[in-house]
Amino acid sequence: MKILLTGFDPFGGEKINPAYEAVKKVTAPDGKELIKLEVPTVFGKSIKIVTDAIELHKPDAVICIGQAGGRAAVTPERIAINIADAESADNEGNRPIDEPVIFGGENALFSTLPVKKMIEAINSAGVPARISNSAGTFVCNQLMYGVLSYCRIHCPDTIAGFIHVPFLPQQVENRENIPSMTLEDMVKALNAALAVL
Amino acid sequence: MKILLTGFDPFGGEKINPAYEAVKKVTAPDGKELIKLEVPTVFGKSIKIVTDAIELHKPDAVICIGQAGGRAAVTPERIAINIADAESADNEGNRPIDEPVIFGGENALFSTLPVKKMIEAINSAGVPARISNSAGTFVCNQLMYGVLSYCRIHCPDTIAGFIHVPFLPQQVENRENIPSMTLEDMVKALNAALAVL
Amino acid sequence: MKILLTGFDPFGGEKINPAYEAVKKVTAPDGKELIKLEVPTVFGKSIKIVTDAIELHKPDAVICIGQAGGRAAVTPERIAINIADAESADNEGNRPIDEPVIFGGENALFSTLPVKKMIEAINSAGVPARISNSAGTFVCNQLMYGVLSYCRIHCPDTIAGFIHVPFLPQQVENRENIPSMTLEDMVKALNAALAVL
Amino acid sequence: MKILLTGFDPFGGEKINPAYEAVKKVTAPDGKELIKLEVPTVFGKSIKIVTDAIELHKPDAVICIGQAGGRAAVTPERIAINIADAESADNEGNRPIDEPVIFGGENALFSTLPVKKMIEAINSAGVPARISNSAGTFVCNQLMYGVLSYCRIHCPDTIAGFIHVPFLPQQVENRENIPSMTLEDMVKALNAALAVL
Repeated sequence: MKILLTGFDPFGGEKINPAYEAVKKVTAPDGKELIKLEVPTVFGKSIKIVTDAIELHKPDAVICIGQAGGRAAVTPERIAINIADAESADNEGNRPIDEPVIFGGENALFSTLPVKKMIEAINSAGVPARISNSAGTFVCNQLMYGVLSYCRIHCPDTIAGFIHVPFLPQQVENRENIPSMTLEDMVKALNAALAVL
Repeated sequence: MKILLTGFDPFGGEKINPAYEAVKKVTAPDGKELIKLEVPTVFGKSIKIVTDAIELHKPDAVICIGQAGGRAAVTPERIAINIADAESADNEGNRPIDEPVIFGGENALFSTLPVKKMIEAINSAGVPARISNSAGTFVCNQLMYGVLSYCRIHCPDTIAGFIHVPFLPQQVENRENIPSMTLEDMVKALNAALAVL
Repeated sequence: MKILLTGFDPFGGEKINPAYEAVKKVTAPDGKELIKLEVPTVFGKSIKIVTDAIELHKPDAVICIGQAGGRAAVTPERIAINIADAESADNEGNRPIDEPVIFGGENALFSTLPVKKMIEAINSAGVPARISNSAGTFVCNQLMYGVLSYCRIHCPDTIAGFIHVPFLPQQVENRENIPSMTLEDMVKALNAALAVL
Repeated sequence: MKILLTGFDPFGGEKINPAYEAVKKVTAPDGKELIKLEVPTVFGKSIKIVTDAIELHKPDAVICIGQAGGRAAVTPERIAINIADAESADNEGNRPIDEPVIFGGENALFSTLPVKKMIEAINSAGVPARISNSAGTFVCNQLMYGVLSYCRIHCPDTIAGFIHVPFLPQQVENRENIPSMTLEDMVKALNAALAVL
């Protein structure tokens, strides 16, 4: 089994993105091949880069990782919606308002990952995990929607989805009572999630 | 150097108290002796038990650990105040309202632990830590005040204070976006704090 | 113009539901007719009751109001998803897990209310409002999905959607730092939202 | 009865401080005289300005109002501590670290206002209120400590204390799920608190 694991680069004034930091440290489950990819936090371009990698590597599973600052748990996403609506600009200055990810696309696409099993596995590994019902309307949601849409058409046997991780402790050092998670715990969580596949 | 490390038992409907769970796994820093003590979450009685242990063991440092559900970081307390004011009953049904911890005592007592250095050490170990300016008005604050008051009179060379830890992941599994911390990280944090002494 | 405004009854151990309390005090905008309906927090039944009222009254707009405890603002919902997945039982003991709202239905349906304009109007009235991208997976989301689905088929000219309101102050009196909103502000917010139609 | 009511000016990048905005709209309770004062968010200077006003007006009660961004309720403070420890600079660039408010002063001073009665009155007025056990270690706490210390020495019959108010809705418009309170509710709360005196 081949797994494509992607993580975003830093955005929104942050110097680090826990997503790719964690991805770098994830280890391939026994007997599985793991391909890692850093993805720019840019509307459109992120979808292109990940779907190009899907075309090239033909993975059995695609898991995209992103940062959800303020969340207290690792949150596999249930669904991506067909809207891009940014409160701030992405890393190339794009700021779409109420635009569809794909014109004429379905309103939403459900993750095809075993989301609940992953959550159970992460919790069993001692790291807090919860399902999320919204990946937002920024680049994370757009990538999830774009990848799910691509897979449905071009490689329906490839399962795909998105997992959000909290801030790292160093990102919240001077902010009051914002949840964070150590890199070690994030890696443990992602390893547990991958082991489920 | 001898360190007395205490942790409360479960209260408020929780089945577990991360405080003593973490204390159990803390290891003595090189060349230091570590005495561990589980303390009941009971007004008055907790002070008696800890100060009896101080009298018996004559430690150089006393660090009491308690749970602060909802906090996102390990929080060494700066100060204890001379008030017991409980929103709910302790484990023996006591619920003092606006009572002093010690009649005629000072309004507040500052921690005599190197609080800021501990926080720096915990953050350096990769675990989020912040100073807290309130240990509340429940048993945690009462114990901190009681121990600081006792030490000032009976063993002024003994430094003392209190550190709060967040919920464990299993305590927040069905609650939305409540911060938690893995036991492993708490232990890492307490080990880092003790190494400063 | 005829507006159907619904609000849920209390659930989850709460004695009051701000949703219907607020609905009761909303006043019809000038020249508009306002029909109010209390709806049970029960899967399925709530859809039946509201769609029966739509059939009976033939409103031009349907706005369903529900409580989203923990939110800090009035939150018009952007989208409802085709999933019922309850963390706890509804008021008749139903607890669907990962069931579709409508078998074979679209993955999600967007609110047909002028959501952004409503938010602007509520904020202009001095009450905090934000868009929400998830109505959850409990009865609120189910009702929103069910109503949108019904309207699309039976009365495509009727606009419909859902607005969540925070807890009332009395619901959080003994809970630490949970956001709440006065009934007066909720009513002001709903009046502002209705005036946009 | 004469009441001195003070409110801070904006700080920390905010364009508005709800404290003085609310103070401006508070009305004198029947038969009471109300003196209002805007205070700069500056260490030291704020104490000087308020204690000068106390000397001049000889009020029976002094209530200082400040903003506590992130809190969900109006929070009368129980106690001020003898520490100034700023995470960021005040409005004149001062940033004391672990300095006492008054050298040789008591560790902490309790509010001499009827804090619990005020909370009850505010809640009865329909606005959320809770006691706070920490006014922080920035200018608010310093002013509260300074005023309590001054009154104890110079006018022991004058009661004094501090009340924190949340952000206004416009301060959190683009921040996710930060609690806020309308100006109207803050004014209602302060009117209720003053009526208790």
